[in-house]
Amino acid sequence: MSFLKRRLVELELNPPRVLAMGFGGLILIGAILLNLPVASKTGESIGFLNALFTSASAVCVTGLVVVNTGEFWSLFGQIVIIILIQMGGLGFMTMATLVALILGKKITLKERLIIKEQLNQETMSGLVKLTKYVILATFSIEGIGAILLSTRFIPAYGFAKGVWFSIFHSISAFCNAGFDIIGSSMVPFVGDIVVILTISFLIIIGGLGFSVYIDISKNKKLVRLSLHSKLVLAITLILIVTGMILFYLIEWDNPATLYPLNVKDRILASFFQSVVPRTAGFNSVDISKLEDTSVFIIIILMFIGGSPGSTAGGIKTTTFGAIILTTLTVIKGNKDVVAYKKRIPQEIIYRSLAIASVGVFLVTVVSLILTLSEDATFLDLLFETTSAFGTVGLTRGVTPNLSNFGKVLIILTMYSGRVGPLTMAFAFAKRQKNNSSSYRYSEGNILVG
Amino acid sequence: MSFLKRRLVELELNPPRVLAMGFGGLILIGAILLNLPVASKTGESIGFLNALFTSASAVCVTGLVVVNTGEFWSLFGQIVIIILIQMGGLGFMTMATLVALILGKKITLKERLIIKEQLNQETMSGLVKLTKYVILATFSIEGIGAILLSTRFIPAYGFAKGVWFSIFHSISAFCNAGFDIIGSSMVPFVGDIVVILTISFLIIIGGLGFSVYIDISKNKKLVRLSLHSKLVLAITLILIVTGMILFYLIEWDNPATLYPLNVKDRILASFFQSVVPRTAGFNSVDISKLEDTSVFIIIILMFIGGSPGSTAGGIKTTTFGAIILTTLTVIKGNKDVVAYKKRIPQEIIYRSLAIASVGVFLVTVVSLILTLSEDATFLDLLFETTSAFGTVGLTRGVTPNLSNFGKVLIILTMYSGRVGPLTMAFAFAKRQKNNSSSYRYSEGNILVG
Ligand SMILES: [K+]
Ligand SMILES: [K+]
Repeated sequence: MSFLKRRLVELELNPPRVLAMGFGGLILIGAILLNLPVASKTGESIGFLNALFTSASAVCVTGLVVVNTGEFWSLFGQIVIIILIQMGGLGFMTMATLVALILGKKITLKERLIIKEQLNQETMSGLVKLTKYVILATFSIEGIGAILLSTRFIPAYGFAKGVWFSIFHSISAFCNAGFDIIGSSMVPFVGDIVVILTISFLIIIGGLGFSVYIDISKNKKLVRLSLHSKLVLAITLILIVTGMILFYLIEWDNPATLYPLNVKDRILASFFQSVVPRTAGFNSVDISKLEDTSVFIIIILMFIGGSPGSTAGGIKTTTFGAIILTTLTVIKGNKDVVAYKKRIPQEIIYRSLAIASVGVFLVTVVSLILTLSEDATFLDLLFETTSAFGTVGLTRGVTPNLSNFGKVLIILTMYSGRVGPLTMAFAFAKRQKNNSSSYRYSEGNILVG
Repeated sequence: MSFLKRRLVELELNPPRVLAMGFGGLILIGAILLNLPVASKTGESIGFLNALFTSASAVCVTGLVVVNTGEFWSLFGQIVIIILIQMGGLGFMTMATLVALILGKKITLKERLIIKEQLNQETMSGLVKLTKYVILATFSIEGIGAILLSTRFIPAYGFAKGVWFSIFHSISAFCNAGFDIIGSSMVPFVGDIVVILTISFLIIIGGLGFSVYIDISKNKKLVRLSLHSKLVLAITLILIVTGMILFYLIEWDNPATLYPLNVKDRILASFFQSVVPRTAGFNSVDISKLEDTSVFIIIILMFIGGSPGSTAGGIKTTTFGAIILTTLTVIKGNKDVVAYKKRIPQEIIYRSLAIASVGVFLVTVVSLILTLSEDATFLDLLFETTSAFGTVGLTRGVTPNLSNFGKVLIILTMYSGRVGPLTMAFAFAKRQKNNSSSYRYSEGNILVG
């Protein structure tokens, strides 16, 4: 192990760089496979840029597509896509955890301690066990999801197609990928309680992150969970409930979305529409027909995203939580940021601020450039960019009409959103070698706000 | 003095509350005067809500208007407006500084020390001197501005009108109010180097804040300035230059804005368009004809705003600077946020984060509600809300057509933007009495981003 570690250090392969490059490599391999004529139903190659876009979208579990997945791709193409999704989703989760455990990045001395604490894994055999656990858990959950979905998809599409649809959408939902081969996402099943709830729970579980399930399965009682798990669960719940109520109130009288449905279906659709923007990318109502207000709320939810170490994108629930808690702390006139009787250290607060500001910067600059290169409204371009950044995959119809330049820009946004903007910065920035210098500058003050 | 202080404490009038209530009172008085029939040219009252809107816009030096200031208001009305602007602009600056000096708020123990240090004023006689200095400086600068403007306005409008226009617009510019009685802001003078530069420098000087000029006039050399002044000057310069270059590049081929102008006038218009969004609210090109990209850039500049303790609104240059510096610190892997060899303390960073997040929250929620109540595009509503929050006053034409509900909402946004969202929160939140408790919670960790 220490040999591998030394080798990596020699190659200047710090773990964030390994992660960033691993993703890049997987995307390239996927693009080459999807560029093959056999990948399309018509037997004609889609062209490299579109193949690259699709592969990036799959590996980054984004779900933005330039062609309709169900109509364009052959079974071979669809299998390539779902494998890329599974590797992108699962691979990232285990890689992120394992790489952090094995090598330890400078920034995450504390994170490593948390992970160790949460998983209670100190030895290599423990790591192997962890990997097995993660893989087993993933396949079990996806299996259960597929079985539940098949009770509806087999009657609807026949046996062979129904089984394939069940497997595809269960993986796609758990990995928060948002790819669908139905053709219009979950719109045909808007009122189907089995399909909607199964997909929703796959999405939610996939978006919590493994450290949270391990914590739950170990500690059972809520009060005994770690601060991280408590925050993740609390913020996830708040976001889902708030989003659901807002969607219901805003859309109930919109004839293109909720109005034609009965009350049960409206509640179900509002719930689904609140769950999916935070990274999943499915939809059961037509996104392009939503009120501007709902679109704006979805943009915010997409930007926040899911929880760290999961299949989710965005700035993450805990980052959002840390920012809100800091704001409340300042308003109350306190000095320490406290949650559940634990003090959140300054480094974490600074880091949250950095993640949010890099995120805002990225989404802003990309949207700005797109307003110059593309022919679409500002709101739609902001929507599509945030969807790419949050690896959500919801679309207002802009993606298939993007210029080549716009496609490249969205590919890069999906990639940065998945790897994490801060990880990208860590991966390629020259960082201070010696951090523990004893010299500290004297304090200087500024007036703010 | 200590008697006044005691009285105030008894009334639970903490300084932020004094500030907030003082503004509220001034707005009400203004509304009553502007509601008089004599205030309008036609001799008919404008109605209380519109009078309140205009008064709030003047006191908060915002400049959003429901009627054309030059066409609708009588000379009496215009005089009331310019006095409200002067009191709102100057009053806030001195009040903010003085109240902080006299009473000292808990949050600003450090700020108080900076102000003391910068002004080197420890005694009451010093405070009186300071007030005199601020008032004298204001009138001198406005006087010089009016004389410069009169060299163009008298030839253009005749003597009496020219003098009145010069005084009105000099005060309006220095106070960053953005009110104009020309009818189309500075559009007729787009290429007039005297008018554009005079207005621009009045705006820039007004937006720096008094502590910065006092610092400059005392220390002369840049290197000897305080950290606060250095940051204010650096960020102001960066924002103006960046904005100017972007506007030129985006708008030079827009036939409705820069394209008909020669190169000198294009540069002048770009410079002006970069200076004004950070709180001034004048325009020399038609804002409603700008490209979406420019509109988006203006929204960002409006949100950032000017510098603290000035006539400017927004989250402030130093807040923005603190956030950027923290982000760079985290990316470089450092622990302390350092600027010009001084460490910015944790409280200031937390406070900056809080200000930005309250600002984002406010602008978001108000825009969101307006998408429901008003009939305008999302971009225009976001523009108008940010303009109100940043007390900028630029408009895409939404304000005159607002519903009554929308007007009330924009009045409240202007008010919160001027008083400062955090000050509002301080003013009305129950704050911890005892902050120095020796008990500190143990550290808990979370994974972010
Ligand atoms: K997705
Ligand atoms: K203004």
